[in-house]
Amino acid sequence: MLINYKNIKTFFFDLDGTIWNWKDFNPQMRHIIERLEKKHKKVYFVTNNTTLSKKGYSQKFSRMGLQISEEQIITAGYVAAKYLQSKGVTSAYVIGEQGLISDLSTQGITVTEESKTVIVSYDRNFTYSKLKTVTDLVTKGAKLYTTGRETHWLVGKEKYPAVGSILAAVETATKIKAENLGKPGTLMKQRILEDIFLFPEDCLFIGDELIDVEFGSMCGFRTAIILSDMESEINIKKAKGTLKPDTIIRDSRELIAGL
Amino acid sequence: MLINYKNIKTFFFDLDGTIWNWKDFNPQMRHIIERLEKKHKKVYFVTNNTTLSKKGYSQKFSRMGLQISEEQIITAGYVAAKYLQSKGVTSAYVIGEQGLISDLSTQGITVTEESKTVIVSYDRNFTYSKLKTVTDLVTKGAKLYTTGRETHWLVGKEKYPAVGSILAAVETATKIKAENLGKPGTLMKQRILEDIFLFPEDCLFIGDELIDVEFGSMCGFRTAIILSDMESEINIKKAKGTLKPDTIIRDSRELIAGL
Repeated sequence: MLINYKNIKTFFFDLDGTIWNWKDFNPQMRHIIERLEKKHKKVYFVTNNTTLSKKGYSQKFSRMGLQISEEQIITAGYVAAKYLQSKGVTSAYVIGEQGLISDLSTQGITVTEESKTVIVSYDRNFTYSKLKTVTDLVTKGAKLYTTGRETHWLVGKEKYPAVGSILAAVETATKIKAENLGKPGTLMKQRILEDIFLFPEDCLFIGDELIDVEFGSMCGFRTAIILSDMESEINIKKAKGTLKPDTIIRDSRELIAGL
Repeated sequence: MLINYKNIKTFFFDLDGTIWNWKDFNPQMRHIIERLEKKHKKVYFVTNNTTLSKKGYSQKFSRMGLQISEEQIITAGYVAAKYLQSKGVTSAYVIGEQGLISDLSTQGITVTEESKTVIVSYDRNFTYSKLKTVTDLVTKGAKLYTTGRETHWLVGKEKYPAVGSILAAVETATKIKAENLGKPGTLMKQRILEDIFLFPEDCLFIGDELIDVEFGSMCGFRTAIILSDMESEINIKKAKGTLKPDTIIRDSRELIAGL
């Protein structure tokens, strides 16, 4: 074990693939989170998945029998909302679902068809017509943001095109590269550092994808990767530099034992 | 003038941006085509735009007052249909519009949700659900084709996301590169060489994009580019190798004068 979990004061977890597979809670995770709280560790959840808002994720945890406050959840939608609010932006055109719209609304940002700001996110109701609207707005000079670059998500073994696939259509049509508001972007990092009092060396980021490792490294945290279907162990072992995790968690009981 | 038009026996024209801007006929083009026919030149039209079928384009010309037979029109949909038919394929899943479906149907290929063949084309009714269906089929091993890689089309000055933008979403989600059935692909070239009796050195390909030049060169034809909003003169002049046209047509009267 390359990480002494006893020294870690703050744990950051990715959600999809790490905590749950959309609906199915990773069975050991409830136990880990309860254990961490008993040990007075701080626990946060960081996700690019904007189908739910901060509040929506808190409610989802609650339905699963865990009390996680909104403050413990950082979504790319919330990062977007806080960042745009800080820039004085009050409206955005959105390719996205209710969670994102709700996070924006909480910060006073409304969704309109005519805006100088475009956010591309995961949207199961994505259409050619939305692609055309974004192309028109960006051609007229709107700034283009995305909530992530994941190409696909897994539900069980089933592959779902993710935000990165929708974004590929937008970036190809507009020839503009979007700024990433989610992991592994600097705006997500800045938001965490502003919201949470922490010493980076006391923090651990646990995820199931190399982008989680990259993001953790970017924040100056230790990093751990949990094996899932998203990244093969071969790929993880080949990873270098900021993509190389400090440790690979094969069984989350290792983590509990180390606390 | 780098081309002696008198020596050209067979003229190939791109459609969008060259002959018309979707609905608006390039005013000099009717005159040119009539003149070419009077001089007993052979005239063909080659397009990646599958919103209409071979028959549909012939009817569109007819509505514009020009008699162009179906045999004079080569669409990427027709190329797809003939190629798949030659492979014994009888069904395909299609992201595309009625023109493509009609060209496929003429060759006995039906559109189904379950198929070993996927064709991605221009589709103003493209949705996330279609993207998911294609991802599922390709994951199960279906072969992926596209009717072109154009990123956008212009209607007047207005930019419309084209087949290449839709394809970017598909290729990103599936991590598979599609085979191109349109310009500048080898299947389109083979189809032309099989359908039309010609000596490549007697042929000229006239288009408004560098892919037209590339395709013409690929066929061993002379190439000419007509200035439009799709390619800047600077880009055209910088083009090298197979992308460099033999001539730039600034005014189509030059062509008539040279016949």
